[in-house]
Amino acid sequence: MSDIIDPKTLRGFRDSLPQAEVGRLEVQEKLTRVFRRFGFVPIDTPALEYAEILLGKGGGETDKQVYRFRDHGQRDVALRFDLTVPFARFMAAHVHELYLPFKRYHMAKVWRGENTQRGRYREFIQIDFDLVGADSASADFEILMIMQESFRELGVPRFRIHLSHRELFNRFLAARGLSGSYLPVLRVVDKLRKIGPDEVRAQLVELAGETSAGQMLEFVSSLDSDRETLRRVGSLLPADCPPIQRLDALWRCIEDCGLGEFFHFNPAITRGLDYYTGVVFETFLGDLPDIGSVCSGGRYNDLASLYTREKLPGVGASIGLDRLMAALEELGLAAGAATAPDVLILLLDEALLPGYHRLASALRAAGLAVEVYPEARKLAVQLKYAEKRAIPLAVIFGPEEQARGLYTLKDLRDRRSHEGLNDEALAKTAARLLRS
Amino acid sequence: MSDIIDPKTLRGFRDSLPQAEVGRLEVQEKLTRVFRRFGFVPIDTPALEYAEILLGKGGGETDKQVYRFRDHGQRDVALRFDLTVPFARFMAAHVHELYLPFKRYHMAKVWRGENTQRGRYREFIQIDFDLVGADSASADFEILMIMQESFRELGVPRFRIHLSHRELFNRFLAARGLSGSYLPVLRVVDKLRKIGPDEVRAQLVELAGETSAGQMLEFVSSLDSDRETLRRVGSLLPADCPPIQRLDALWRCIEDCGLGEFFHFNPAITRGLDYYTGVVFETFLGDLPDIGSVCSGGRYNDLASLYTREKLPGVGASIGLDRLMAALEELGLAAGAATAPDVLILLLDEALLPGYHRLASALRAAGLAVEVYPEARKLAVQLKYAEKRAIPLAVIFGPEEQARGLYTLKDLRDRRSHEGLNDEALAKTAARLLRS
Repeated sequence: MSDIIDPKTLRGFRDSLPQAEVGRLEVQEKLTRVFRRFGFVPIDTPALEYAEILLGKGGGETDKQVYRFRDHGQRDVALRFDLTVPFARFMAAHVHELYLPFKRYHMAKVWRGENTQRGRYREFIQIDFDLVGADSASADFEILMIMQESFRELGVPRFRIHLSHRELFNRFLAARGLSGSYLPVLRVVDKLRKIGPDEVRAQLVELAGETSAGQMLEFVSSLDSDRETLRRVGSLLPADCPPIQRLDALWRCIEDCGLGEFFHFNPAITRGLDYYTGVVFETFLGDLPDIGSVCSGGRYNDLASLYTREKLPGVGASIGLDRLMAALEELGLAAGAATAPDVLILLLDEALLPGYHRLASALRAAGLAVEVYPEARKLAVQLKYAEKRAIPLAVIFGPEEQARGLYTLKDLRDRRSHEGLNDEALAKTAARLLRS
Repeated sequence: MSDIIDPKTLRGFRDSLPQAEVGRLEVQEKLTRVFRRFGFVPIDTPALEYAEILLGKGGGETDKQVYRFRDHGQRDVALRFDLTVPFARFMAAHVHELYLPFKRYHMAKVWRGENTQRGRYREFIQIDFDLVGADSASADFEILMIMQESFRELGVPRFRIHLSHRELFNRFLAARGLSGSYLPVLRVVDKLRKIGPDEVRAQLVELAGETSAGQMLEFVSSLDSDRETLRRVGSLLPADCPPIQRLDALWRCIEDCGLGEFFHFNPAITRGLDYYTGVVFETFLGDLPDIGSVCSGGRYNDLASLYTREKLPGVGASIGLDRLMAALEELGLAAGAATAPDVLILLLDEALLPGYHRLASALRAAGLAVEVYPEARKLAVQLKYAEKRAIPLAVIFGPEEQARGLYTLKDLRDRRSHEGLNDEALAKTAARLLRS
């Protein structure tokens, strides 16, 4: 029998077992409810696209992370590695049959051939939500509210959305004649959370000298209150600075809606390597500071310039579902996912099969989740199955019960039997026991 | 600007726009409710697997339909082309951490490089449900009940599940010394629905001669009632034939549960080219006879023999979601999918932004789906957006309303205004108008 194939998955790919899958689907349902409350609509795009679409015309120097190959028709194709690029292509293709502003969410798998040494997966689920077709404080705030509502709905304690504006630091450097060092400096500042202020200072000194480094570090540091930090940053920039005006407008909304505790103005958030042009944000969990941001995003000037001349400004965020699920599990918030039905009808006599299934139908119609054990195996075997699955109730209808025409309902949690029940009493007793 | 990339998808691949996506998700939610009521649990598997897993060890002669390539690590990989093979690998890998009987459903994309000329897609969603670990009438009937419940839950009128047993025809031929012609004959019979009885007869005559062809056609034809057909078929087979006993047991369940109208014993159903060994079934829509089966399946002796020595008998069925959605659309049952929120709050004055969003939050907390228009554009533009999206209600809160501290709610369907509402009255009036 050496021709058995080892049933293994590819490295970085995983099966999702029922308990995990139910938990994941519950999270997605909760997020769906939030998105729909804000008028966001779902879309989907193909997993496989032309490589040129996903990588741009210069797709020759492919990122090694992209799964790219030739299909049967020798087309150069690739699996999507995020949901932003397909969304850009989607908007360019459909903007005229849709409407603007367009607000969509998208929950789907993406694939990246990442180094799995660091616990990364090569197949994972992203959850993106974007508002396209408006450049305004209202649009920015809507995305921030959805982020806040999402974590509230999931019951995540002590989360905080760190917020800044990509232009702030840029303008600060320009006002000091330091624009040239913009990107390298941004990259260093972006590492503040990871490598700490001392190391950042050392690297900034090397890039821009002692004095400038000190000014930069002061610029990106937070004061006691967000308002104070906003004032300090504003005072270091030219008057009537639009990024400051945008942040002021956002803070008025945040305060007026009583959401101050969930937000933090943090000028060190730059998302240095991304394509953002306005507000930028990351979300940290107070109880798990080390896992990094569980929801990040920002504003971009032009989503789809690769595929259309139509200008499509937008703002959006992305949740890495796998990181979020790991966080929920670590916080003990992922445990509740129940996979068991309410009732198991024991199969004690094959001759009664139609009756078992008729009863199952009646109980399902009464709102219960019900299984019939599929074979007339020993009672111990059937009860062991119920225990393994943590099914709370079992219906016993053997020859004795059949003689009386009445069922016995057994509560497998306290092992108590409730005897002499007709159809109606059975459904009612089951519902009552499940509520208890 | 010739460097714009054409935002096209690959042939056979499609974007899913909000209306279609909402409709699809609603169908999946309804089916999920059915599956969960029967104690079935969800799983997921990777989209990408070792080609050897998906195609077996002889994977050299790859089906041209499979998307197969070398990944970065030069591994021979492929995209899954169905959900059965990954499920077999899944069971072999996890049977010892799970339990038997194991009942799972799986809704996911699969990929096949099919000829798109015939309106086929290369990326589509399958919905599979299987009960593994029992070979019994009860298990068979459970799958049949789920099929029946699924179509009932979706509101599909006049569907009928055609049911037979794969062994019947086999045993019939064996009893006549015709076993040798088994597979070719099965293939011909399987085409009965497509090519009609005359053409089937002609082909059978060629294969087995006039007399045998006549007997075969008689064997697979249906009489006035399923019970009559069962008796006729039984009379042509040796006594105590297990397939007949299984079908008898199923018909007792079908009749006892009052489901006779949804089932039809059809000995012409053979699913000739599949790996089934017991009951086999297909589902036809009375109103759309030409689209073929929308849900098919059957019993197999051994799911995972490629990957494990453990015997895993099972029974299951598969819904092709795209064909089903097309059918629902043709029957006018897919129309209801609403993508619009309940209320649009018009943005009439940027200075009032925090108030608009505070109101939106209050209305959402009252259970409404609410958007704030993201920019203070002309009223006509904002109303046109509401119309395009078919949003039923709009909140007007401009300088005039602000002076009174009260809102105006406009019903965009009958253009009536409801003025002078405070927060509470606004939520109540909106809820009342939405119910009307």
